[in-house]
Amino acid sequence: MSSAFSVDPVLQEVDSRFEESVSRLCELLRIPSVSTDPAYAKDVRRAADWLVGELSALGFTASVRETGTQPAVVAHHPGPGGDDVPHVLYYGHFDVQPAEPLELWNSPPFEPAIVEAEHGRRIVARGAVDDKGQVMTFLEAFRAWHAVHGTLPIRVTVLLEGEEETGSPSLLSFLKANADELKADVCVITDTNSWNIDTPAITTRLRGLLYAEVTLHGPSHDLHSGLFGGAVLNPINALTRILGQLHDDQGRVQIPGFYDDVAEATAEEKAMWETLGFDEAAFLAGVGLKTPTGEAGRSAPERLWVRPTCDINGIWGGYTGAGAKTVIAAKASAKLSCRLVPAQDPQKVLAGLKAFLDAHTPPDARWEIQTFGASPGIQVPTDSPYLRAALDGLGEVYTNKPVLIGMGGSIPVGGYIREALGFDSIFVGFGLEDDRIHSPNEKFELKCLHNGIRSHAAILARFAALKG
Amino acid sequence: MSSAFSVDPVLQEVDSRFEESVSRLCELLRIPSVSTDPAYAKDVRRAADWLVGELSALGFTASVRETGTQPAVVAHHPGPGGDDVPHVLYYGHFDVQPAEPLELWNSPPFEPAIVEAEHGRRIVARGAVDDKGQVMTFLEAFRAWHAVHGTLPIRVTVLLEGEEETGSPSLLSFLKANADELKADVCVITDTNSWNIDTPAITTRLRGLLYAEVTLHGPSHDLHSGLFGGAVLNPINALTRILGQLHDDQGRVQIPGFYDDVAEATAEEKAMWETLGFDEAAFLAGVGLKTPTGEAGRSAPERLWVRPTCDINGIWGGYTGAGAKTVIAAKASAKLSCRLVPAQDPQKVLAGLKAFLDAHTPPDARWEIQTFGASPGIQVPTDSPYLRAALDGLGEVYTNKPVLIGMGGSIPVGGYIREALGFDSIFVGFGLEDDRIHSPNEKFELKCLHNGIRSHAAILARFAALKG
Repeated sequence: MSSAFSVDPVLQEVDSRFEESVSRLCELLRIPSVSTDPAYAKDVRRAADWLVGELSALGFTASVRETGTQPAVVAHHPGPGGDDVPHVLYYGHFDVQPAEPLELWNSPPFEPAIVEAEHGRRIVARGAVDDKGQVMTFLEAFRAWHAVHGTLPIRVTVLLEGEEETGSPSLLSFLKANADELKADVCVITDTNSWNIDTPAITTRLRGLLYAEVTLHGPSHDLHSGLFGGAVLNPINALTRILGQLHDDQGRVQIPGFYDDVAEATAEEKAMWETLGFDEAAFLAGVGLKTPTGEAGRSAPERLWVRPTCDINGIWGGYTGAGAKTVIAAKASAKLSCRLVPAQDPQKVLAGLKAFLDAHTPPDARWEIQTFGASPGIQVPTDSPYLRAALDGLGEVYTNKPVLIGMGGSIPVGGYIREALGFDSIFVGFGLEDDRIHSPNEKFELKCLHNGIRSHAAILARFAALKG
Repeated sequence: MSSAFSVDPVLQEVDSRFEESVSRLCELLRIPSVSTDPAYAKDVRRAADWLVGELSALGFTASVRETGTQPAVVAHHPGPGGDDVPHVLYYGHFDVQPAEPLELWNSPPFEPAIVEAEHGRRIVARGAVDDKGQVMTFLEAFRAWHAVHGTLPIRVTVLLEGEEETGSPSLLSFLKANADELKADVCVITDTNSWNIDTPAITTRLRGLLYAEVTLHGPSHDLHSGLFGGAVLNPINALTRILGQLHDDQGRVQIPGFYDDVAEATAEEKAMWETLGFDEAAFLAGVGLKTPTGEAGRSAPERLWVRPTCDINGIWGGYTGAGAKTVIAAKASAKLSCRLVPAQDPQKVLAGLKAFLDAHTPPDARWEIQTFGASPGIQVPTDSPYLRAALDGLGEVYTNKPVLIGMGGSIPVGGYIREALGFDSIFVGFGLEDDRIHSPNEKFELKCLHNGIRSHAAILARFAALKG
């Protein structure tokens, strides 16, 4: 690349304009773009419009795109021109989880608050880190490049999703329908964590997700527990009895065939994780716990990154108001999700879950089952030049050496992009484990935001050096 | 008794004025006296005022009485005079359960609808049978006696409660505080069922109730199921695991000591129940089921009347809205209740329940437990002259012979009256098993209302014959 594209002035621009970056993130956070609740549909669209405006100002051709469900944003920047310029697809999402329970927030979830804490200032709001703050790390890096050099050093396509928190129902079909337009050399996905505030990370393993809502139907209507209790099926009792058997006393999931395709981590992976010195006591203390739990005989990184799970995410049935109502409910429901590891087929796990439920169904009862998302786990190659370039870019910004880690969460888009577009993804993000994503008082450290912008700025230069 | 108190003209009066009785019941049903919801406090009081008006018109000295919670109605009628006149306390309640879920009602719950069905006309409304319709059976019997003879044939005290559906929090203290005023020879409680529409019944066994709300607390806040799943305590999974063990595979409750004080029904009781020909298939079909369930090796009348239970009445935790939220909740809750049989001590059962929960508590978790009502089961003597007189009165009205039965529900007032006032109760009521009490479309057959009024009119005459 020519020296006209030197990165140092870009990093200086990032630093000198950082307060403006924070203000812009606050603007985006004030839009309550909750995708799971139809009441906020207008706000999801408003967030998309806002992003189109920002991208357009940076030399992108940007537009809001219909997907059939929530809108997406697609934007293209030609870069400096030339056939041999790398082309990178950047992915993030601008929808957020519901903010409930509201009473547990220290400040309103959609009025971002800047709070001083141990690592300096942090921004507290729903979406602060997941994923609006992360999206702003590459948007603000683009802005600095645009300001300093009048262009980006590579060709860039941006895809911002508006329904990640609902399980991305239309993402795969959108990618397939727009495959030519979205084609690039590699995808950069910014929705993951650093290893710690001083140690950047690229995530090479992510778990997939199968999410289901199950309802057990029993009597034709709610009954009086005195007149019927002891002689009729109680669906809530039955549901607890059935779901209470999801794990054995070694913490192993009892869905038939659940572990059939689960591969052990490699010796190399285990060795690398060993060196990370995962502090399980601190991990647990951060959430008010102290006793290791889960699958017996496995290290914490294994349980979190390469072992599948089955968690009940919600349960409800019968009378849940104040005081007493002596009712036997006609039905009982639960939401449950399995985190999956690579090679586990979500559809096979779903079939196993149905078989598990069927095998335990009491006489006269029936199941109603809905699924919300089914995506496999992801394992990305660690030897690609783009991944090496990203590691180098991170190494330029942080003192600590970047590490390769796994992650327990699910980012289906990586698998979808592989399937629909045919190239790999690099998961590089700047969140911290204690950022309380999906919880009240979600936050993003401004130090992470700042280093994230600097990192993306530096990585862009490293990408530009790959060809040409 | 003098022939001036002949019962035949009273029964004729009941028959000829029956449509007016129906209208008056409709008037009472239009008052939404839901005691569990503070929003209806004014309506509970309005129902009390309405009853005071009705009783006053029948020669009673009646008043609304404060209990500290919901008001009660107390009324006195001197009867025909003389020291040797029997004195009977009549009990009923004028509060009702919440009508929710409203969308399942075929007509508005507080606009009584007269509907034709297999047994002729029925009245559909919240409280139609529980307990406003039942209260009107004795009120209208008093009215007919008053109209024909200008008095009642015995001395009568009436106690109408306004908080039965909230577990009668202040009833025992109210009875104790007013023991002298409420003293009588026997109490007649009209809040139970006939055996079937053509066979009247006196209920001699009722189950008690222990109602508890339990919450299992785990992590300090809600967590992301991807980032934490597999390595932290999930309180919903734990709650299902624990409550799923409340019964063994023979349907026996696993609370420690639960059956210690449970007596078997006598051979005589079992023989009487055998003759009733309880149709379990029909009982189950009425609620959309077909497979007998509950404690193995017990007949349906045993399981319903003389065996204790443990039902979960409500359960909740985590995300229960539409779609997916990948959360591990910080806590999970359930409401559960045990129907108790005589000699089971509710406090001992509560201690057992706590011991059961404690024994299953996962590391780092803690329970929060609240109770809403704890009342023992009731067994009334079957050889008292008042009970025999009541049986004779029923025999006069119905072709089928009256039977002595048990009931699975709880009517704590019988035990409270024994404790506070020192006399027994006779449970005689006119509901049917399919009346859908506490459910949408609660109803009372007009044939039951009519026979109930006639029965109370006849029983009054039989009581009058006991002394004098």
